[in-house]
Amino acid sequence: MTEMMKMIDFLPPRTVKPRNNGYTMVMDKGLGNHATEDLCMTAAPYIDFLKLGFGTSVFTGGLREKLAIYKKYGVEMYVGGTFLEAFIARNKMADFHKIMKEFGIKMVEVSDGSYEMGQKRKLEIIKECAEHGYFVISEVGNKCKNREYTREEWVTSMKAELTAGSRVVIVEARESGTTGIYNKDGSVNKEMVDYLISEVDPNKIMWEAPLKSQQAWLISTFGINVNLGNISPADIIALEALRNGLRGDTFAQVLEGRY
Amino acid sequence: MTEMMKMIDFLPPRTVKPRNNGYTMVMDKGLGNHATEDLCMTAAPYIDFLKLGFGTSVFTGGLREKLAIYKKYGVEMYVGGTFLEAFIARNKMADFHKIMKEFGIKMVEVSDGSYEMGQKRKLEIIKECAEHGYFVISEVGNKCKNREYTREEWVTSMKAELTAGSRVVIVEARESGTTGIYNKDGSVNKEMVDYLISEVDPNKIMWEAPLKSQQAWLISTFGINVNLGNISPADIIALEALRNGLRGDTFAQVLEGRY
Amino acid sequence: MTEMMKMIDFLPPRTVKPRNNGYTMVMDKGLGNHATEDLCMTAAPYIDFLKLGFGTSVFTGGLREKLAIYKKYGVEMYVGGTFLEAFIARNKMADFHKIMKEFGIKMVEVSDGSYEMGQKRKLEIIKECAEHGYFVISEVGNKCKNREYTREEWVTSMKAELTAGSRVVIVEARESGTTGIYNKDGSVNKEMVDYLISEVDPNKIMWEAPLKSQQAWLISTFGINVNLGNISPADIIALEALRNGLRGDTFAQVLEGRY
Repeated sequence: MTEMMKMIDFLPPRTVKPRNNGYTMVMDKGLGNHATEDLCMTAAPYIDFLKLGFGTSVFTGGLREKLAIYKKYGVEMYVGGTFLEAFIARNKMADFHKIMKEFGIKMVEVSDGSYEMGQKRKLEIIKECAEHGYFVISEVGNKCKNREYTREEWVTSMKAELTAGSRVVIVEARESGTTGIYNKDGSVNKEMVDYLISEVDPNKIMWEAPLKSQQAWLISTFGINVNLGNISPADIIALEALRNGLRGDTFAQVLEGRY
Repeated sequence: MTEMMKMIDFLPPRTVKPRNNGYTMVMDKGLGNHATEDLCMTAAPYIDFLKLGFGTSVFTGGLREKLAIYKKYGVEMYVGGTFLEAFIARNKMADFHKIMKEFGIKMVEVSDGSYEMGQKRKLEIIKECAEHGYFVISEVGNKCKNREYTREEWVTSMKAELTAGSRVVIVEARESGTTGIYNKDGSVNKEMVDYLISEVDPNKIMWEAPLKSQQAWLISTFGINVNLGNISPADIIALEALRNGLRGDTFAQVLEGRY
Repeated sequence: MTEMMKMIDFLPPRTVKPRNNGYTMVMDKGLGNHATEDLCMTAAPYIDFLKLGFGTSVFTGGLREKLAIYKKYGVEMYVGGTFLEAFIARNKMADFHKIMKEFGIKMVEVSDGSYEMGQKRKLEIIKECAEHGYFVISEVGNKCKNREYTREEWVTSMKAELTAGSRVVIVEARESGTTGIYNKDGSVNKEMVDYLISEVDPNKIMWEAPLKSQQAWLISTFGINVNLGNISPADIIALEALRNGLRGDTFAQVLEGRY
């Protein structure tokens, strides 16, 4: 809690780390170490999960120092699902585990956005990773498919993955925020969203929401402690202001006590 | 003045700090301290006003060190208008003043973009803040209204706010640059702009111009020393090049002596 | 080569510095020195050319320290073509050379995007700069013209400039990625691209590709070692992941050995 937060008596009931809901997942695409230190010093209490986006961790110089900074500030990190998919696609899971161990990464995202492994294989991977001791999250979506999933298929996948060992299911939006529950123009497919939460515990769902309009819509719909993912490091403080009603889009909502 | 500036004999007559016109206002949405130091070292002479955007100051870890950096470099800073509106809406002005004092912030922006307080109340707040010793700026716009202001209403507000104690009136564009004097596609409503400057001293107007196309249009229309606001920290050096005719959009204008 | 790269045995045959193809040119618009250090520490092996965009070098405080950082990490840098054009347009080439010498900059970009000097003058400048000992690159495009160049004019210019002393010809896209070989919406004009490479050695062409969709299209078309320019510092690690098939867009291409 910052000094200024302590001087304000009307902030809404935002959850604190370690949270059970109100998660924020940030995507780091290769921040340098001064920027990592900056991110942690300004925003560590708001970052529940830090994703080293897709395969960027492989090419980032100074990675060990960077991971040490995240550890120092208590920021849980993991590598993007595309990274794991690259090992699954080549039948090299042992190499994957070796690298995770070498770098001390204890959380894993299982996705099938780049490699079509089939639901059966995906569930096996989730189980394997859970049994291996990782904190597992998984991602549903329709990144590379020829057709879009039906909402029933989404729900079936989400339930099966949670049962298999996934702690949170991420609803894919890509970095651009134009797929999954979002329409091509970045607006929200509300009918889809309503159906998902009627079938799956919203606290177990993380919505990827890279665009401010999407963040604002999700906060106005599900409250200030909705789980949001794929947040840019540059936007994390702004998102915290948005959650707390100190930005135009959510000002009235919080003023009127609709948390 | 940088070493390289001293070696070039054709730079146009750009004003220097403390300026009476040609202001640049930068919006900081939670920069860390290395980034703040970087911004000041590279660009302090071009930053007349530094806004801690909307409520971001509340949630930024390491804020005191950050404010100290801005002070060291002579960068005048203030908190976004939405921050003040949150205290007005809750009748907690005393708390607002206490926080500003505690953090040594001596400049204030009075806006009504998030909370509809009515023009009378807004003018009272401007007077109160001016009497309190703040350097006051105010913002006109139509952030949250059900209808757009007419141009006559804009001018009436601007004149009244300047009379009440505001030093500069900001013409709202939001961070996205798609409201106020801008159309939905980010282009400029020229008729509106012409009318505003026919009624109000342009040196007292600060145009929010987050997009490069908007900055270029305003510079080509009002000259290199137009007042520009809501500039991203990442764009401040690029804007200075644009003002000086060392970027394509304004190259011919400066070459031909149209400052 | 990072530690993690050494632990992965399926990375594709990406070229290494000093490269003959597979160049990446990054545009720096005024990074501060912590950010410059971050960029170099994370990504120096992937940056073949570093452009201090348009006239930004003139206004960047702390420039000498910054250039020293790039030199320490072996990153070759130069000033944007607009900078040189400003001296050409004023007949002050001697001043230009003096400044380059003072700051130890040994590479130059010759462009005519802002100042219409005519092809004859442009070729003279390329020769002058090559004889002066600079590593010269040149840019073709149609930044400010009243009409677009025909594809035949593009090819004629590219060949003449390479003959005159240019080592690589840059195909202009501006920072926004919406001109040259790109359509207004940022998509690629494929017919144009095909014609250019049928006439000019692709290893001598650098494609400006600021948008991820453009980078992905060029990699899928020309392979992982295509020359790409105007990359944002924030995207350089992500681009390296893209080139190596560790991002969704190129995952299948690399998995299937289409390098």
